[in-house]
Amino acid sequence: MIKLNNPSYYINGVLAGNISILSRAITIIESALPAHQKIAQQILSGIAKHNNTSFRLGITGVPGVGKSTFIESFGKILIQKNYKIAVLAIDPSSNISKGSILGDKTRMEDLSKEKNVFIRPSPSSGTLGGVAKATYETMLLCEAAGYDFIIIETVGVGQSETMVSQLTDFFLLLMLAGAGDELQGIKRGIMELADAIVITKADGANINKANSARAEYAHALHLFPPNLSGWIPQVLTCSSTENKGLEQVYTILDNYKNYVTNNGYFFQKRKNQLLDIFHYFLLEKARETFYNNEQNKNKIALAIESINNGNTSVFNLINNI
Amino acid sequence: MIKLNNPSYYINGVLAGNISILSRAITIIESALPAHQKIAQQILSGIAKHNNTSFRLGITGVPGVGKSTFIESFGKILIQKNYKIAVLAIDPSSNISKGSILGDKTRMEDLSKEKNVFIRPSPSSGTLGGVAKATYETMLLCEAAGYDFIIIETVGVGQSETMVSQLTDFFLLLMLAGAGDELQGIKRGIMELADAIVITKADGANINKANSARAEYAHALHLFPPNLSGWIPQVLTCSSTENKGLEQVYTILDNYKNYVTNNGYFFQKRKNQLLDIFHYFLLEKARETFYNNEQNKNKIALAIESINNGNTSVFNLINNI
Repeated sequence: MIKLNNPSYYINGVLAGNISILSRAITIIESALPAHQKIAQQILSGIAKHNNTSFRLGITGVPGVGKSTFIESFGKILIQKNYKIAVLAIDPSSNISKGSILGDKTRMEDLSKEKNVFIRPSPSSGTLGGVAKATYETMLLCEAAGYDFIIIETVGVGQSETMVSQLTDFFLLLMLAGAGDELQGIKRGIMELADAIVITKADGANINKANSARAEYAHALHLFPPNLSGWIPQVLTCSSTENKGLEQVYTILDNYKNYVTNNGYFFQKRKNQLLDIFHYFLLEKARETFYNNEQNKNKIALAIESINNGNTSVFNLINNI
Repeated sequence: MIKLNNPSYYINGVLAGNISILSRAITIIESALPAHQKIAQQILSGIAKHNNTSFRLGITGVPGVGKSTFIESFGKILIQKNYKIAVLAIDPSSNISKGSILGDKTRMEDLSKEKNVFIRPSPSSGTLGGVAKATYETMLLCEAAGYDFIIIETVGVGQSETMVSQLTDFFLLLMLAGAGDELQGIKRGIMELADAIVITKADGANINKANSARAEYAHALHLFPPNLSGWIPQVLTCSSTENKGLEQVYTILDNYKNYVTNNGYFFQKRKNQLLDIFHYFLLEKARETFYNNEQNKNKIALAIESINNGNTSVFNLINNI
C-alpha cells in the first residue's frame, strides 16, 4: 500500500492538477481501511470549495458496441478543443474476479498518452453502492484537478446504468445497427434514461443499416414520456474509426448544456443528485452508528450465533434487536 | 388497494397452499405502506416454522436467449415429476417505466395454466435492495405454500445476477451458441457464478454450433478457480421447442443437490445467505432508527435545506450530523 502523506499534501496536489497525486488520492478514497477513509474525508472536505465547471458525461452500451473506440475518437475531439478529460470506468460484473474493464485488455492506447487525459479503471469494491461512492468521490477529485469533461463509462445492461445516469449531467447510449434490441439487451428502461443515442460503426457496408436504425430509434423515443428537462433526446450515427459524426455529438452536448443551463434544469438536476448522495452517505453513517452501539453489538452477536445454530427466523431476530 | 385481513388469515391461507391468498400476501409484502409492512412482518413470522424442503433455482441469460421458453418446457418436466413450482421474475432495468418482464408480453402461457404452477412478475420497487427483499420474502411465502421448486428468473447482465445467485441454491446460465461472448454481454464474473451453463436452441441447423459452444464453455470453465462447493460446473445443450436435453438438466440439478447435501455445502450456503439477509434487514432497521431519532431529524432537515440553498459540501454536512 502507498505511504500516506497528510491531507494538505493531497489537497494541494489535486488542486494543482498533479496527476500522480490525483491517482494516489483516488487510491486512498477507494480504500476501505479506516485510516485511509479518515484522510479521504479530509481530502474531500479540502477540495470542496473549488469552482466546478465540468460537464459529467455518462456513456453506456453493450460489450462490442465500441465504447472504447468511441471514447478514444471523441476524446481526441475534446482535446483539440483544449478540454482536459477524465475517463472513469465502471464494471458491475467483475465482483468475483475483482477484474475491471480496463484490466481485460489495453484500451484507449492513443488517448491514454495525451497530456490532458486521465483514465482510471473501475474500483474493485464489491457492492454497487461502494462503486457509486468511489466513482462520485473520484469525479469530485478530477473536477478539483481541473478536468472539464468527466466521462463515466459503464458496460452491460442493468442497475449500473441507472447509477451512472444519477451521477452525470448527460446520458449517452451507444447502440449497434441491426443487432436487434433484444440481443443488445437494451430495455425500454435504459432507453428512457438516454439524452442521446448514437448508432456506432456507421461505416462501409453498415451505413444504410445505421441510418434505418437511427430512424427507428428516433421514432421509438417519440413514444416515451417527455424528459424531465424538456430536452428531446437526439439520435445520431457515427463512425469512430472514420471520425464521422463525432463533431455532431459534441454539438449536441453543447446544445444540451446551453438548453438546460438556460431553463435551470442543469443545477436543479445536480441539486437532486446531491440530495440522493447525501442520503446515501447518511445511510452509511446510520449503519456505523447502529452497529457501533454497545447494546446493539451484543444483541447482534447473539442473533448471529443463533443463525449459526440453525435459527432461520430472521424477522423475529431483527425485531428483537 | 386490497382490503386487509388479519395476519392469521394470510398465514393459514398460505400454509394451506391457497394461491389467491398467497398472491395477496405477496402484494402486502411488496407494499411500502407502514400498515402493510407491519402485517407483512407478522405473516413472515407466522410462516417461519414450516418445514422448508424447496430447491431454489436461479436462471439468467440475455434477452433473446429463450428464458421463458426454457422455463416453460423445463417447468413441464418438473410438473410431470409431481413437483409444485413457483416462478419469480426480476427485471432490474424497469426502474423508470415501472414495467416488468412479464408485463411486456404474455409469456409462459401453457405453464401458467397448470394447477401446480405459480408465476409472479417482478415487484416494481425502485432499488435492487428493495427487489431483493421482496423476492426473498416472496420465496419464503411460496415455500410455506408448499412449492418444491422456486425458479428465480432475471434478465440482462449486471448486478441482479449476483443478487439472484445469493438468493438461490443453484445458478443456471442460459447462453446462445455462436452469438459470441461479447455480444451476449456475458462477462467472466457472471460465468463464475454458474453451477451449470445450458446452450439453448440446439436444434435444426444450430446443433453443430451448439455443440462446439458447449466444448468451448466447458474449456473456459476449467480455467476458473474451483467452486466453493467443490461442484464442477456442467455445460449442456438443449432445445426447449424440441424438448431435448431438458431431462439432463433435471439430472444435473438432482446430482448437485445430492452432492452438496452430502458434503454439507447446501446448508452451509443457506446459512451464509441467511447471515447476508440478516445484515441486509438490520441495515433497514439502522436506517429507520437513525432517521426517526428526534435530534437527527432536525439536523437532517437543516442539512437538506442547506443543500437546497446551494451548499455542495456533502461530506461536511454529514460530519455535522
